[in-house]
Amino acid sequence: MNNRKGRITIPTDESYVEGTKKIAELWGADAVRDCDGVKLPKNPKEIADKVYNVYFVDRGNHEWAKNNPDEWQHMFVMTPFITATESTVSVHLMDTFFDQQVKPDFSEEAVKHMEVMDRTTGQVWNEWEVDAENGNVIIKNAVPFHQYTVAFLMISLWHPVHMYNYITNNWDEPYHIMYDPYYPKTRKFIRENLQRWCDANPESNVVRFTTFLYMFTLVYNQFGKERNVDWFGYNMAVSPRMLDDFEKEYGYKMRAEYLVDQGYYNQTHRIPTKEYKDWMQFIQNFVTETVKELVEITHKNGKEAMMFLGDCWIGAEIFGVRYKELGLDALVGSVGGGVTVRMLSDVEGVRYKEGRFLPYFFPDTFFDGNEDNAVAEINNNWITARRAMMRNPLDRIGFGGYLELAAKFPKFINRVADICDEFRYIYDTVKTQTPKNFAKVAVLNAWGKVRSWMCNMTAHELWYQQSYSYQGIYEALSGLPVEVSFINFDDVKNGRLDEFDVVLNAGDAGTAWSGGEFWADEEIVTAVRKFVYNGGGFIGVGEPTALQRNGKFFQLSDVLGVDKECGISLGEDKHNLTAHAGHFIMDGIESNVDYGEDKKNIFALPEANVIDIVFSERFKRNYSVGEVKMATNEYGKGRSFYITGLPYSAQNAKLLYRAILWTAGKEDMDKKSYCTNPLTEAHFYGDRYAITNNTSEKQTTTFYDMNGVAQELILKPYEIKWLKD
Amino acid sequence: MNNRKGRITIPTDESYVEGTKKIAELWGADAVRDCDGVKLPKNPKEIADKVYNVYFVDRGNHEWAKNNPDEWQHMFVMTPFITATESTVSVHLMDTFFDQQVKPDFSEEAVKHMEVMDRTTGQVWNEWEVDAENGNVIIKNAVPFHQYTVAFLMISLWHPVHMYNYITNNWDEPYHIMYDPYYPKTRKFIRENLQRWCDANPESNVVRFTTFLYMFTLVYNQFGKERNVDWFGYNMAVSPRMLDDFEKEYGYKMRAEYLVDQGYYNQTHRIPTKEYKDWMQFIQNFVTETVKELVEITHKNGKEAMMFLGDCWIGAEIFGVRYKELGLDALVGSVGGGVTVRMLSDVEGVRYKEGRFLPYFFPDTFFDGNEDNAVAEINNNWITARRAMMRNPLDRIGFGGYLELAAKFPKFINRVADICDEFRYIYDTVKTQTPKNFAKVAVLNAWGKVRSWMCNMTAHELWYQQSYSYQGIYEALSGLPVEVSFINFDDVKNGRLDEFDVVLNAGDAGTAWSGGEFWADEEIVTAVRKFVYNGGGFIGVGEPTALQRNGKFFQLSDVLGVDKECGISLGEDKHNLTAHAGHFIMDGIESNVDYGEDKKNIFALPEANVIDIVFSERFKRNYSVGEVKMATNEYGKGRSFYITGLPYSAQNAKLLYRAILWTAGKEDMDKKSYCTNPLTEAHFYGDRYAITNNTSEKQTTTFYDMNGVAQELILKPYEIKWLKD
Repeated sequence: MNNRKGRITIPTDESYVEGTKKIAELWGADAVRDCDGVKLPKNPKEIADKVYNVYFVDRGNHEWAKNNPDEWQHMFVMTPFITATESTVSVHLMDTFFDQQVKPDFSEEAVKHMEVMDRTTGQVWNEWEVDAENGNVIIKNAVPFHQYTVAFLMISLWHPVHMYNYITNNWDEPYHIMYDPYYPKTRKFIRENLQRWCDANPESNVVRFTTFLYMFTLVYNQFGKERNVDWFGYNMAVSPRMLDDFEKEYGYKMRAEYLVDQGYYNQTHRIPTKEYKDWMQFIQNFVTETVKELVEITHKNGKEAMMFLGDCWIGAEIFGVRYKELGLDALVGSVGGGVTVRMLSDVEGVRYKEGRFLPYFFPDTFFDGNEDNAVAEINNNWITARRAMMRNPLDRIGFGGYLELAAKFPKFINRVADICDEFRYIYDTVKTQTPKNFAKVAVLNAWGKVRSWMCNMTAHELWYQQSYSYQGIYEALSGLPVEVSFINFDDVKNGRLDEFDVVLNAGDAGTAWSGGEFWADEEIVTAVRKFVYNGGGFIGVGEPTALQRNGKFFQLSDVLGVDKECGISLGEDKHNLTAHAGHFIMDGIESNVDYGEDKKNIFALPEANVIDIVFSERFKRNYSVGEVKMATNEYGKGRSFYITGLPYSAQNAKLLYRAILWTAGKEDMDKKSYCTNPLTEAHFYGDRYAITNNTSEKQTTTFYDMNGVAQELILKPYEIKWLKD
Repeated sequence: MNNRKGRITIPTDESYVEGTKKIAELWGADAVRDCDGVKLPKNPKEIADKVYNVYFVDRGNHEWAKNNPDEWQHMFVMTPFITATESTVSVHLMDTFFDQQVKPDFSEEAVKHMEVMDRTTGQVWNEWEVDAENGNVIIKNAVPFHQYTVAFLMISLWHPVHMYNYITNNWDEPYHIMYDPYYPKTRKFIRENLQRWCDANPESNVVRFTTFLYMFTLVYNQFGKERNVDWFGYNMAVSPRMLDDFEKEYGYKMRAEYLVDQGYYNQTHRIPTKEYKDWMQFIQNFVTETVKELVEITHKNGKEAMMFLGDCWIGAEIFGVRYKELGLDALVGSVGGGVTVRMLSDVEGVRYKEGRFLPYFFPDTFFDGNEDNAVAEINNNWITARRAMMRNPLDRIGFGGYLELAAKFPKFINRVADICDEFRYIYDTVKTQTPKNFAKVAVLNAWGKVRSWMCNMTAHELWYQQSYSYQGIYEALSGLPVEVSFINFDDVKNGRLDEFDVVLNAGDAGTAWSGGEFWADEEIVTAVRKFVYNGGGFIGVGEPTALQRNGKFFQLSDVLGVDKECGISLGEDKHNLTAHAGHFIMDGIESNVDYGEDKKNIFALPEANVIDIVFSERFKRNYSVGEVKMATNEYGKGRSFYITGLPYSAQNAKLLYRAILWTAGKEDMDKKSYCTNPLTEAHFYGDRYAITNNTSEKQTTTFYDMNGVAQELILKPYEIKWLKD
């Protein structure tokens, strides 16, 4: 029997102490947390060893905010493109912004960072002046029918998460204004304020920082609706003084354009520029030094410091080089599936990592008659997360909301109790045994390690039509028996490819994910070719290595065996139009493959092996092109696999695993710790196997052990069958 | 009753004289032509006034070819990309070519034009030598894992159309070798040869040149299959001596790279470079001077000179500036639909233009029991061509094949007789009355006039999946009551936009059709913006004005009201997601619009009016993007319309017409000479209307005359109803 206690966090409040105790006992909870709108009981340690309290570093103290308006936070923004129809153009800066969130900073130190661009020529436009009274910038001697933009500093008036919650929940309380610790007065204040808070909250032994200093990019428009969002964006981590200091330290001016980036705001999908990476590092340095002090204060007060992954996490890059310097005890984040588990569990430099599971115990789920749906929701959340847990588990799991609501659903309470036990058993197994990995996979993009498990993400956990066909790759990888690393093009240049069996490049042309201009670098293409030629594997999804240059669109079309017809090579006949059945990769893939958003106009080079090709239904004449969906290629001793898209599904996860084995030249690893039914998966831990049923239905599968010996297994819904080796 | 005689060409042969006379009488034929494998009757003028004979200028004389191997034609080609895995790379030049079509020219004057490129760096590679004995180029000191190409001159051994027919039809005769009139000996020979031919063929009074000097690009691979095709390509109009002369005349070397163009071979979809346009002009100059002489000889012999639009037509650009200098009497080409009619009928500088209709009288159609299909085929060909005839008719129509075969199908013979009469009536009407045009439309692309009606074409009349969604625009335009011009970006700079009501830009990003880098030219974007702002119309299809630059993908997104999400602006919220019904353009559009290959990820700017938007079926959360399919925008006094693709259909033709009227601000022209049923169309000729039924079924329509007075009409299958004004 495994440990029945620990690793679980539950919410509670002062009006539900006895109920909390019972559920804590049943679930083995050892931590309680507060929740919006409720207070912790007076003696929370009677219920649990750990007591979490939310703490805001630079918002929430209205008095400080009110008394120090010169130290409020800023953001750098850009107007829309404005077409000049006359030679004088008056631009009202607030036209597309929300006046409750921001106001332009017309101070001298802010205006000197303003920048007007002629977007038709791409040049800076120097003829303009500020009309602060009317909130305008007046562009002079404009060229008719050129477009202009103004980039400028705004003062933040309202923390956007507070704003969102306030508006959504009809709160009635003062707006949370963000004061900026980059100013020494506020920096001193936040230290003292934390000490005061520690003094005032002796019952809390875990300070749950929500979060540190700067919010990710979240800007609203004139109608109070979201205008720009980037969970990774640094545009709200900026101030006139930072800009001045940056220039002193880095020896060049951080131009407005480097931050507003033509209106793309350096969002994470953009290939990062040198200037933006410098800015990120500049902010990280400041955040590291400042948060370090806060963590020290926390520790001096005998408390643990826990970071919430979200909100004001900018500058505390969890996969960044300075992360461990923060000295944090814990990291907590919400869990939507395998990717979000690994985004937490793979972090180094904190002692423990906790995932907050769904559903929240809120009335939108926990209302009369909805118990079965609540159970289904926790099952679904747990099962998708569990795949990743089997490879690298979180140290703790937790819940949020009002426990009293959940307590009305006994089926739910009992199901969570089972999950807590299962989690602890998985944890003990994976942490004491070594999960067997069958290949080492490197995901190659412009970001590399710093965006581990964060590829193709815009707003955290939100679904985007343009992203899911790539995010499926990472969701699949999060639960596969392979070692996953995230590398960038510098890593390629630094000779790191040889550490891996397979390199994966996935994304749309011109994005950070496929890499864009990096594929013009001969050192990079040469290194990847050499790696594959000498026996490495290469997997491309969507528009890998894409860059229109030197007669190709996929710069490594020779490695991939495919390229894209972009309408400029129609006169080149495509003859490789026959799909070949029976490939190793397709063994056990019985349904049609789901390519998600897919890519059109992919064709195979003569030497490639086409696995799937689609012909237009409109085909009218004896002249056929066909669009390749999957192909493999042999390249020296190495191999490649191409697919147009890979949204997450059980079958696509199996397909990707088989593609990894095949491109790695590891066909001999097939049918080792392996299930034939894609809805089930096997994991080997040295002394035992786990065979998981990832569905709510009974499943039958053939299971192969490490010796390739097969047996038929029947698995109950959600079951993990543990078998001794 | 209209003219029952003339304007018709029929094939005949010496064994079918009496039958030919009867059919000629019935159809009103006034010309006979020969056909492969048959001879004209001895006294063809007994049958018809005009007698056409096929004539080859620089092939077919086997003796001359055999005796002058130093004057055979050449082509410039490029090897595939070859990856260096060692420092010495031996490239066998013939590896991907057909040894019966070509052989490398290893002569000194050819080798000096050879060029080896490092395709990884894009630089010329100078370390190589020729191993003529083995047919190789040896690249030395190659950088491992760079890719190299060799561009070199081939000697043509076989005319590719002859080769194709020979292989397809199992002919047994000597190969047609092309000798090059660029060499003075051959130039003299082709003149003398034509004179000899005229002497030997007194019965022929129309020399049907098939065609002149140089073949369009048609290269076969090592398996004898098509490797590269470009109906517009100049890569077979090249020789060492031309290259030398070009340098003398133009003052710079015509590098191999300028002709092989990274392997794209300057195909018509590519944005033409200055060097390629210079080469085209250089060849056109030579072809013009040479063909002029041949036409003079023809005329001196009392015969007419007719150009077949195809095969060796390179250098005789029918919409080129020097075309009329040729002094031709006639132009003939095959007709596949409205576009191919207008490609002929809009040509200036020849006295008459003839279209060859389908089906050919060949056994593949004219076999026992297939009469109804033969009738359906001519009906279909005629009806699609007729739309264009109603606007600008050909001067003649003709047929090919074996008349004796057709004669066995009396229904077919009678149907063609009706068509001939209908054609003559249309001709007389349109040529004596002025067809009313309701708007002036300019198609804007990188080619302009020289590629009138030839947009998005690769191999003549072949269907390409990547093209039909654009070709539908031109097919629609060919029969609409609008004046159509084709302009290029120089025309925009030269202030020509004001001649038009509406400018249309359609094509994939980076192609000659959308324009690519031209949209970086501030003069161009400024001119188009100004044109629309002042009241002009703009229609964009697919990826109009596309170029990733300065924060946009569609450089005129401000005019179009739409842009494309390329995966780098997902963090910018798209709020304009509601389609608005009831737009002028959609009046009478009752079925779902067919977007053909379509475009994904188009979004509307805030001010645009969305007409159609599609949401992903995978949409899982309360976060919606939507893909815009059609939108309109107001821009100053002007308007724009965007659609993702416009394959040809009756409804799409109506949609385009309505979009033209609306963007032109000509809503007052709606319901003037207009049919509500898209399968019927109205044309106004000053004194009469033609209302066409473009289908094989009976149609009912409301017809509006020029005063907007409506009447219900019932049209028989294929009928044209002529109404007096």
